[in-house]
Amino acid sequence: MNEAGVPAPDHGVGDRERSVPPPLYEVAGAPRLSPAEEARTLVAGANTAALATLTSGGDPWASLVTFAALDDGSLALCLSRLAEHGRNLASDSRASLLVTQPLGDGDPLAGARVTLAGLAERAEDPLKRAAAREALLGAVESASAYVDFSDFMFWTLRVQRVRWVGGYGRMASASGAEYNAAMPDPVAIDAKSAIVHLNQDHGDALLVIAQTLGGYPDATAARCSGLDRRGIDLVLETQRGRAPTRVAFPHELAERSQLRGATVELTRRACAGPTVRGPVPDAGRIS
Amino acid sequence: MNEAGVPAPDHGVGDRERSVPPPLYEVAGAPRLSPAEEARTLVAGANTAALATLTSGGDPWASLVTFAALDDGSLALCLSRLAEHGRNLASDSRASLLVTQPLGDGDPLAGARVTLAGLAERAEDPLKRAAAREALLGAVESASAYVDFSDFMFWTLRVQRVRWVGGYGRMASASGAEYNAAMPDPVAIDAKSAIVHLNQDHGDALLVIAQTLGGYPDATAARCSGLDRRGIDLVLETQRGRAPTRVAFPHELAERSQLRGATVELTRRACAGPTVRGPVPDAGRIS
Repeated sequence: MNEAGVPAPDHGVGDRERSVPPPLYEVAGAPRLSPAEEARTLVAGANTAALATLTSGGDPWASLVTFAALDDGSLALCLSRLAEHGRNLASDSRASLLVTQPLGDGDPLAGARVTLAGLAERAEDPLKRAAAREALLGAVESASAYVDFSDFMFWTLRVQRVRWVGGYGRMASASGAEYNAAMPDPVAIDAKSAIVHLNQDHGDALLVIAQTLGGYPDATAARCSGLDRRGIDLVLETQRGRAPTRVAFPHELAERSQLRGATVELTRRACAGPTVRGPVPDAGRIS
Repeated sequence: MNEAGVPAPDHGVGDRERSVPPPLYEVAGAPRLSPAEEARTLVAGANTAALATLTSGGDPWASLVTFAALDDGSLALCLSRLAEHGRNLASDSRASLLVTQPLGDGDPLAGARVTLAGLAERAEDPLKRAAAREALLGAVESASAYVDFSDFMFWTLRVQRVRWVGGYGRMASASGAEYNAAMPDPVAIDAKSAIVHLNQDHGDALLVIAQTLGGYPDATAARCSGLDRRGIDLVLETQRGRAPTRVAFPHELAERSQLRGATVELTRRACAGPTVRGPVPDAGRIS
């Protein structure tokens, strides 16, 4: 039963799940980032968000804002007190911020997003104001055009509750304390070009990794859909359908510069493994 | 004084305005779309939004949704009752939807966005549900993956209040009645490729239009930044700085197919006018 008292079948393990072919041999679960780390990483890579505030009548009000993520997890905002969201925050400090992964023309609900809910406070203390101002100028190139206007006020949103959705079927909550203590992942935060490179130039290596380490010896193609310090996410094509899998790196990476070495090592291990190509093999023989 | 009782200097007519060079001869104000039409057009071209709802404690909650715009101005949503926004709406029908123009890497606050505030109601009536379902399947390709899951509910948001921001310095409010009665602009809704074409292949024509009809005889380059049935928005370079201007079409267009003829006619009129190029001319001589 969920909070509304309604029986709560998980639609993620319903119709959709049945259409995803399972792995053909057992694979050790590859460790993932925590939800708080996923959220911090997504937020650290963004500078625009939807802000939800309360009108004087208590109605929810969604508006576009720019923001900067501060090291302690709070978010710096600079809002005009002439704008509705600025007036709203001045009279009720409750707010939440939706940060969405840019997706282009893809399936909009396949991408990651996070809602950060908390309380906003005016950054009136000169040191806090200076820190928020500097962070915002660093995160938003055009902010210099308005941050010093007399009607713009600096705010910091202290995060108290986090809801992260990684796409279909991947979602979790985190407390404000977990979120504020987490750090953005050093690999995932800047993985875009590495993912493009892997998919353009190393499709063969990804395929062997999928076949021998990822549980899908019948994979016919593989592309990287995500990278972080703990592993690599793959999306595979098989004659049984499309499937996601994840393979852990040999060691957790401390920084992005270790990414190349880790993928080379992963490929070496995959090539040394029981590579199986061609038609759907007998699963029993492999596992 | 604004609603918060604070003196309200309009920052749009402050520091920023002074840096924009004025036209050098008087130009008739080119008619624009109404704020309600701008909002309807923006919404008609989108299928994702940020939804603001109220938690059980009355806190504002921002989340990502897909939606479809219905002809009567209301918005069709399909939300899981397992998700926080679905539970929120079920217990308090107040909501607002933020629709943002996709901008890529540009200045995030230079783009258009609109907040639609109103009340959501369950589309339980079979006809209403069927209409919402069909609209959503038409607007969101991937919606077929979840609209028929048992935990997904259809909602329609009836718009009661609209706040449209067209970018820096362009903003207006509209009532729900104005919004619901307006129609998306037939030219602006699908103008992207026409704008790209004009800028790639007809920069010379845009420049002459800017010089002789747009008030900037000293323009050295011009690009189209927007098109609608009433006119063309231009951004010009001059030795005095960058400036926006707008030129009306000879006649209001009824449909997109008339766009080519209208821009040809505008170019013809511009070329027949008192073309002035080169260094900044004597404004008195031209006006």
